Amino acid sequence: MTTLTIAVPDQAMLDRLSTTETETELVVWTTDDAPLGRPIDLLVLPYSVSPNTLPKLADAQVSVVQSQALGYDGVAELLPAGITYCNAVGVHEGPTAELALALILSSQRGLDVAARAQPAGLWKRDWYPGLLGSSVLIIGVGGVGSAVEERLVPFDVTITRVARSERTDDHGLIHSVTDLPTLLPLADIVVIAVPLTAATTNLVSGDFLDLLAPGALLVNVSRGAIVDTDALTERARTGAIRVAIDVVEPEPLPADHPLWFIPGVLITPHLGGNISSMPSRVDPLVRQQIALLQSSRPPLNVTIRN
Amino acid sequence: MTTLTIAVPDQAMLDRLSTTETETELVVWTTDDAPLGRPIDLLVLPYSVSPNTLPKLADAQVSVVQSQALGYDGVAELLPAGITYCNAVGVHEGPTAELALALILSSQRGLDVAARAQPAGLWKRDWYPGLLGSSVLIIGVGGVGSAVEERLVPFDVTITRVARSERTDDHGLIHSVTDLPTLLPLADIVVIAVPLTAATTNLVSGDFLDLLAPGALLVNVSRGAIVDTDALTERARTGAIRVAIDVVEPEPLPADHPLWFIPGVLITPHLGGNISSMPSRVDPLVRQQIALLQSSRPPLNVTIRN
Repeated sequence: MTTLTIAVPDQAMLDRLSTTETETELVVWTTDDAPLGRPIDLLVLPYSVSPNTLPKLADAQVSVVQSQALGYDGVAELLPAGITYCNAVGVHEGPTAELALALILSSQRGLDVAARAQPAGLWKRDWYPGLLGSSVLIIGVGGVGSAVEERLVPFDVTITRVARSERTDDHGLIHSVTDLPTLLPLADIVVIAVPLTAATTNLVSGDFLDLLAPGALLVNVSRGAIVDTDALTERARTGAIRVAIDVVEPEPLPADHPLWFIPGVLITPHLGGNISSMPSRVDPLVRQQIALLQSSRPPLNVTIRN
Repeated sequence: MTTLTIAVPDQAMLDRLSTTETETELVVWTTDDAPLGRPIDLLVLPYSVSPNTLPKLADAQVSVVQSQALGYDGVAELLPAGITYCNAVGVHEGPTAELALALILSSQRGLDVAARAQPAGLWKRDWYPGLLGSSVLIIGVGGVGSAVEERLVPFDVTITRVARSERTDDHGLIHSVTDLPTLLPLADIVVIAVPLTAATTNLVSGDFLDLLAPGALLVNVSRGAIVDTDALTERARTGAIRVAIDVVEPEPLPADHPLWFIPGVLITPHLGGNISSMPSRVDPLVRQQIALLQSSRPPLNVTIRN
């Protein structure tokens, strides 16, 4: 068995992995560090890192990159030749779906309003739409979309699913995106759970938003650039729609952006994967990749091979 | 078929019921009005009404009272003789469980923090405990407790249930309250879903709270008096526990109460049942009670017959 060089982004991950990975050489290294001067068999990227750092890997002799993120928009264009890129399937789908439910429930039950009234000691009862009995349209049936669906089922809602092309699975019909003009007006809540690609950039345009029923809630836990921020801000400002988003274009949203200050808008700062149990899902994935490389098998979750 | 007199608390309910109840005499009447001067076969109470108004029914010739609430603490002591009291089973369990999930998810994912940072345009990423992988202890296995359990299942949590006495049902073991000293230290989240009775008043005492693991979250969607507010405030102030409550003793919580201002505390103003689809669940119950009375059968959900 070859002794592999495994580069991880911080000492904490190195310490965790060193308890099991006794046959590998573990080092802490990121693109901010000086070149390691020897080949890196597997490089684990920091969790929140821009694809803009990827060109720095051109001379780093890296074979396989393991991202700690699920989305990989922008990677193919920036990843140097000769590197295999794997995303973090199985790490963030549950936490991101959980956040989608948190956004939905906060908005539908007025928890954002209550949280803001709290520092004033304000006990202000009001009526809110609730989730029970709502029609929820989930756009995207991948890992996150499925995990959102699964968590919504017991809330006694009507779930409609949309993907690129029409098909049927165990849960029934999946509509094509071409059905959106018919489906959008029927939804109380629309959840965006598609990856950011050329096809989904600005999918949620002004025209899309204008098809929504008055007061419908738009939820985005995917990538900000799927939504036209200006169009969203304008429709939220007039009260035509409500908004609950964890992602926005640009991030961070500038402190003076009008979207922050509109009633009926709830913004969380890209917290989708930020839960403290994340290492308990990342570490097993990294260990599995190491084991595969040790036995000269291809790694899991290869999304790009440049 | 006798023509029944049905008194409802507002014109909106009268208008909704009059579309189907053509064989009854529908009137708007509450204890604030002058006596109706004739027997009321069924009196629907306003939704948020104190049991303290019940003695005013002594001379109102009411046979059956239909509450729009689920809890009926304090009613037996104040209901005049000769009146049958029915609670609103099936109306609030889903909405209240939904609110419990909203409180849990907001607290576990930092949505309360984000909502409060929003008016300052503050994009502040942080790490939060999350729900995935947590141990949740649900105290109470009635309508609300079961609905909370059902909604928690897909979140990949470990659920432990507690009721008055140990037993087993389709979902497995239900622990006795006498097991609480063993169970409380193991929970990340404790949900209070028992009715308020003599036995549950101050169930969540200082001693109870001191058994919780550091940073555990206490959730209450039942009645405020189940929790010792002073003991809760003290443990929240020191950071020993986190709190997410929809009910508190007293209500409304005074504007200067210290509990409002403690980080890690989320307070909603008794919103459990306050969702706009409530009439779609109340009206069928009232219609069913009318039909039963018309055919001289006993009403549903009789909780007290004084």
